[in-house]
Parts: sequence; structure tokens; C-alpha cells
Amino acid sequence: MSIYLDYAAATPIDTKVLAAMQPYFSDMFYNPSSPYAPAVQVRRDYEAAKATIASIIGAKSGELTMTAGATESINLAFSSQEGHVVTTTIEHPAVLAAARQYEHTLVAVDKHGRVDPDDIYKALRPDTWLVSVGLANSEIGTIQPLSKIATIIENVRAERVVAGNKTPLYLHSDASQGAGQLDLHVTRLGVDMLTLNAAKIYGPKQVGLLYAARSVALRPQIVGGGQEAGLRSGTENVAGVIGMARALEIVDARRQDEVQRLGNLRDVLQNKLVDAFPEAILSGHQKHRLSSHLHIAFPGLDAERLVFGLEAEDVLVATGSACAANKGTRSHVLTAIGLDNVAADGSLRLTLGKQTEETTVEQAARIITAIVSKEKARVA
Amino acid sequence: MSIYLDYAAATPIDTKVLAAMQPYFSDMFYNPSSPYAPAVQVRRDYEAAKATIASIIGAKSGELTMTAGATESINLAFSSQEGHVVTTTIEHPAVLAAARQYEHTLVAVDKHGRVDPDDIYKALRPDTWLVSVGLANSEIGTIQPLSKIATIIENVRAERVVAGNKTPLYLHSDASQGAGQLDLHVTRLGVDMLTLNAAKIYGPKQVGLLYAARSVALRPQIVGGGQEAGLRSGTENVAGVIGMARALEIVDARRQDEVQRLGNLRDVLQNKLVDAFPEAILSGHQKHRLSSHLHIAFPGLDAERLVFGLEAEDVLVATGSACAANKGTRSHVLTAIGLDNVAADGSLRLTLGKQTEETTVEQAARIITAIVSKEKARVA
Repeated sequence: MSIYLDYAAATPIDTKVLAAMQPYFSDMFYNPSSPYAPAVQVRRDYEAAKATIASIIGAKSGELTMTAGATESINLAFSSQEGHVVTTTIEHPAVLAAARQYEHTLVAVDKHGRVDPDDIYKALRPDTWLVSVGLANSEIGTIQPLSKIATIIENVRAERVVAGNKTPLYLHSDASQGAGQLDLHVTRLGVDMLTLNAAKIYGPKQVGLLYAARSVALRPQIVGGGQEAGLRSGTENVAGVIGMARALEIVDARRQDEVQRLGNLRDVLQNKLVDAFPEAILSGHQKHRLSSHLHIAFPGLDAERLVFGLEAEDVLVATGSACAANKGTRSHVLTAIGLDNVAADGSLRLTLGKQTEETTVEQAARIITAIVSKEKARVA
Repeated sequence: MSIYLDYAAATPIDTKVLAAMQPYFSDMFYNPSSPYAPAVQVRRDYEAAKATIASIIGAKSGELTMTAGATESINLAFSSQEGHVVTTTIEHPAVLAAARQYEHTLVAVDKHGRVDPDDIYKALRPDTWLVSVGLANSEIGTIQPLSKIATIIENVRAERVVAGNKTPLYLHSDASQGAGQLDLHVTRLGVDMLTLNAAKIYGPKQVGLLYAARSVALRPQIVGGGQEAGLRSGTENVAGVIGMARALEIVDARRQDEVQRLGNLRDVLQNKLVDAFPEAILSGHQKHRLSSHLHIAFPGLDAERLVFGLEAEDVLVATGSACAANKGTRSHVLTAIGLDNVAADGSLRLTLGKQTEETTVEQAARIITAIVSKEKARVA
């Protein structure tokens, strides 16, 4: 059995989630738009799942648009209007690609990957209609001061009213990576739009949602039968949405314990590796960081060689982000936090999850120490 | 156990398909972009599934963009260029909605729901870049003369070359409804783009694809990590695509037998109902029609009452299309073929599928006859 330390890239579906989905594959397979009772029941179950999700994030069902994942949700959020958008240099490629379709400003982050809310403020123009800041970074785990940004945006909105500027200003956050560890309550976060992804919380792949407050006028990207209140057409993904609701319920119920547990395990792993390799460089904010994340660079080593060496010992880890990993390009996040190339090229992303135990991290620390030592000896 | 006669609205996942998908939920759950061997294996399995699909439709893997279903595929096909588009009055709502985003001409059909290729020709303008004609209609089952339309388009392209008109001209077909019964070979169909949907062929919901020949320059609607050759970003739906490939393989292998079998069963049902109710009106082309489809109107009756009466006897059927069904609007297809309102409002769509047997249609015919007779007596 391998030691999986790449939960930020993909999570296995929880058996309880799969069990919740199962009836909707072959028995309750009806089209929720069909008129007969079993189909009406499917519609009810679908709506109940949306209501469950809505309640967890403090929203109303009608404010959720179910999508095929975070990337589609982000694209939907960005397509609702034309104009200037503001985001940060360390966002997920989907946010950066969506932003590039418009006039945009990328706000820099500090060396821990944190954005200064004042820098967001300074980037706002009279025609800025969207600010998009990911709740937590998928590569280095840094958590952003989202509610402070929300307060700034609230103030700018008030200023716009006084100035007679009718351009709306919305705050969107991709919370795909923080879900399961951070509070997702939209009012407490202060967001107008929120992207979530089932695939990162032990739910099915290709299921996500965009929360948009009633005040946001979304513009559909996918038109047709008018499902999801006309915002995203196509026969509903009944099994997938029921799976996402169950997945979110499960991670939400044990969120605080799990944050504690993962944080302790991550710290054990981090301390062992830093003790063994004092030259190692940790990235990500050491306080405002997801408990699951450990980003560690071994300057002078080749991360790909480390990944394959570890794989040979049944330890599965990532180099850089899953998205950049296969393309031989350097991570834009590591560039943005100013990690030099020698360190970036020797960096691993270790992400913990549900099946990570004390024995797992101890074994992993031993194996990683052995492989890194071997590589150090080789290049010495 | 109820008698399901609404296969055009939704199909249960084949147990073999679900079995093929199952490993990718919890065991082989890895992100196909991750670098370690188990993830590389997932990538290979994903690509193999695409190759299987490609081979069945006579295409290359690189010409397939996997999507979250037919609606997204259609939207992707339509978004590849601006300009004038031509389609028919009886297309799926997704095609009509996509067409309405551009300058468009809707070509009328005859009373059997068939479009005359010459009428398509007449609708073409020098700036027409897309013709979209569904392979078979989901409500009445009429099959379109697609290869004749393809020939016309081929000729117009040649004329454009001579005239120095550089506007490309593409033929797209939504074949969601014909899959499993009709030849989907893209060269024989003569299409440049083809939409397919797993949910209609005993595969998973929210999985579909757009085939686009290399000559077509698609423009992505969903940008981000660059998956699907940059045409549709988002972590790949591994389980879903593997399910779609298996589903397509299964229906393709028994296509000819199944067409024969369903056609015979449908004719039994049709003959029994027409014998019992000589005033009944059949819609859809009686020769060029999907074997699965029987659209029958009982003028003067209320189709919704029939649906609920049948449901009480465990027979599940549709009134009009699944998309229009819940909205109290009249089917645009029935309007387009000139079925008068009194007939349209009393019409049922009965669609047969894999689990339909001789005993099923005989029992269904008996029950439908009883319910229709009762309703006739009530309104008399």
C-alpha cells in the first residue's frame, strides 16, 4: 500500500459519498425534468442536496449554480461582466486564464504568498468590477486575509455610491483548496461569489459550484434547456451533486478536529525534514497556512528525480502544482514568492489528508530523508 | 417493477459501464496530470478510453474534446466563430439557444419533421460559417438526410474557393439521440463537428464530447489548466470518460440487432394503439425514424392526465420533450411540424430501450389502451 501525500491534486471518493451516489446511477436514473413521480423524487433529492450545500456555506439554494468543477465555476464568475478585474499573481491557472480575457491587474504577494489587502485597494480602478482572490493557495497552502479584503471592497462600494459610480464591485474567491479546513460561510468570508470543487473533498470529480449572491447578475456560458435557473443548461448531474453534498457534510462535520489532526501530523513531518536538512526552505505562510500543506525545497536537487525516487519507495508526492507538473515549466506561484530557481527546481509539495496517520508521516519522513540524502550525495 | 418508456429522456447506467467506472472513483483516483506511475496509468486509461470512442466514430483522439454533456458540446461548437449560422426549427433547445446568440436562420421542416437539403442550401449566405442539424429528433425520432446536407455543404465550400470567399463552412450535428441506433462514423456522416452524450446510451450523466475535425478552429469556452488540448480546461473526468467509452462500445456492438429488435417492438405497440384508436395521429417520419420512438397524439385528450393515469399503473412515459415537459409550454417541434394544438396537447412520447421486451410492450399497450379509453369516456 503506497503512502499518498498528494491530496491537493486529487482525493479518493469517500465510500459514504459513493454509497450516497450509487442509487442515482442505475435505479433513480430518471431525468429530473420528467413529470412522473419517480423523476419528481429525483428532482427533490437533487434540490435537497443543493439545500444541504447551501446551508453549510450560509447561502440559499437559489444562489448556487452547479457546474462541472471549479474551472467552469471560475469561468462563469468571470464571464458575468466586461471590464477591469483584479486578482493576484499566485492564483490557480483557471483564474489567471479567465482574468487574461479582460483588462486585468495582478497584485503581487509577499514571500509567504500573502496578499496585502492595501495592495488590492490600490489596484482598484473606477471600472473594476471583480476582485478574485483564492481562499488558500493550492501549492504552498497560504491562506489569504479574505475578510479584510471584503471590508475594503465594502468601503469602495460605499464610496462609489457617493461618487455616483454605478459599476458594481464583486469579490470572488476560489475556495476549492480550503474546503474541508476553512470556514466557508459566505457572509463571514464576505464574498459575493465562491467557487467550490467536490474533487478536493473526497467527492466526485467534475462536480463543482459557483455561489453568487442575488445581487450578482451572472451571464450563462452554457445555454440550452434552462437548467440551474437558466445559468447553466444541461441535464442535472444528480449523482454528482448528491455526492458533493454528502462530501461537504462529512468534511464540514469533522473540520475542526481534522485541521488540528492534520496540522499536528504536518508539523511532525516538517520538523523531521527540517531537522534532517537544515538547508531546506519552507514555503507558504507558517501561521496562515492550510494544515494539510507542506512545501519544502531542497536547493540544488532535482524535484523530478526526488518524485521518482520516492515513487520507487511507494511514496507519492508532487513537484510544484499538479497543473504545471507535467509541462516542465516552473511554478508561477514559486516565482511570485521569489523562491530562486535552484530552490524551486528542488521543491516538493507534500499534502496530507484523511488517510494520513502518525505511522504514515513517520514512515514518509524516513523514506524522504533517505531519498533526499541519496540525491544530495549523488550531486555532491 | 414499472414499465419505463422514456429512454429518450434518460437511460440507466449499464452495470458493465458502472463496473468499468468503479475503480476510478476510489482506487485509481489520481489526477491524470500527476507525475507518479499510478497517475500516469490513469492518464493512459483515460487516453485509451478516448481512443476507443474515436475509433468507433472514425475519428482521431485528438479530434475529441470531452465535455460535461451534449449541451456544453453544442455551446463549444457554436462558440468557435462569429457570423451567420443555419439550423432547423426542430433542434434541441441547446442548439436553438446557441444559435440565437448569433445571426441565424431557422430552416423549416416538413410535416414529418424532415428538413429538405435544398432548403438548407437556400438558407446559406456568403457569411454563413455553421450549419447545425441534429441527426435524429429527440421528440418524434425523425432522422435527417445528413449526408445529403453534407454533400451540399461540400459543394458550397468548393464554390467559395472559386469565388475567393474565405469564410469557412462547417456542418455540426447533435447526434445525442441517434447514438446506439445510427452509424456515427464522421466521414460517412460527412460532418465537421459531432456532439455525443453518454447519458442517452446507458452511460453516466454529464459526460459528452465534441468531435471537431482538424480543420475546425475551436475557441475554448472554459479556460484554465489547458486540459483537452487547451479547448476545455478542468481536471479530466476519468471515470466518466471511461464509462462513456464502455457505453459506446456496448451499444455499438449490438447496434444493428437492437435497431431491428426495438423497431419490431415499437411497431407492435404502434399497431395495437392505432388499431384501438383509429383517430390517433402518429408524428415523425414513418420510415426515417429511430426504432425507439413512437410519438402518438390522441386529439382532445390532456397528455398530462394521461401521463399521471399511466403512472398510477406503473407505466412511465413522456409528454412532449423532457425539456419542455415541466414548463407548461407547447413543444416547438410539434408546432414546427404543424400538429394542431388539440392533437399536440394530447400527445405522448413513448421511447423504447434496452430493457423493453415483448411482454413489456404488450402490457404497455393494454394499459395505455385502458387509460386512453377511460379519458376518452370522461371527456365525451
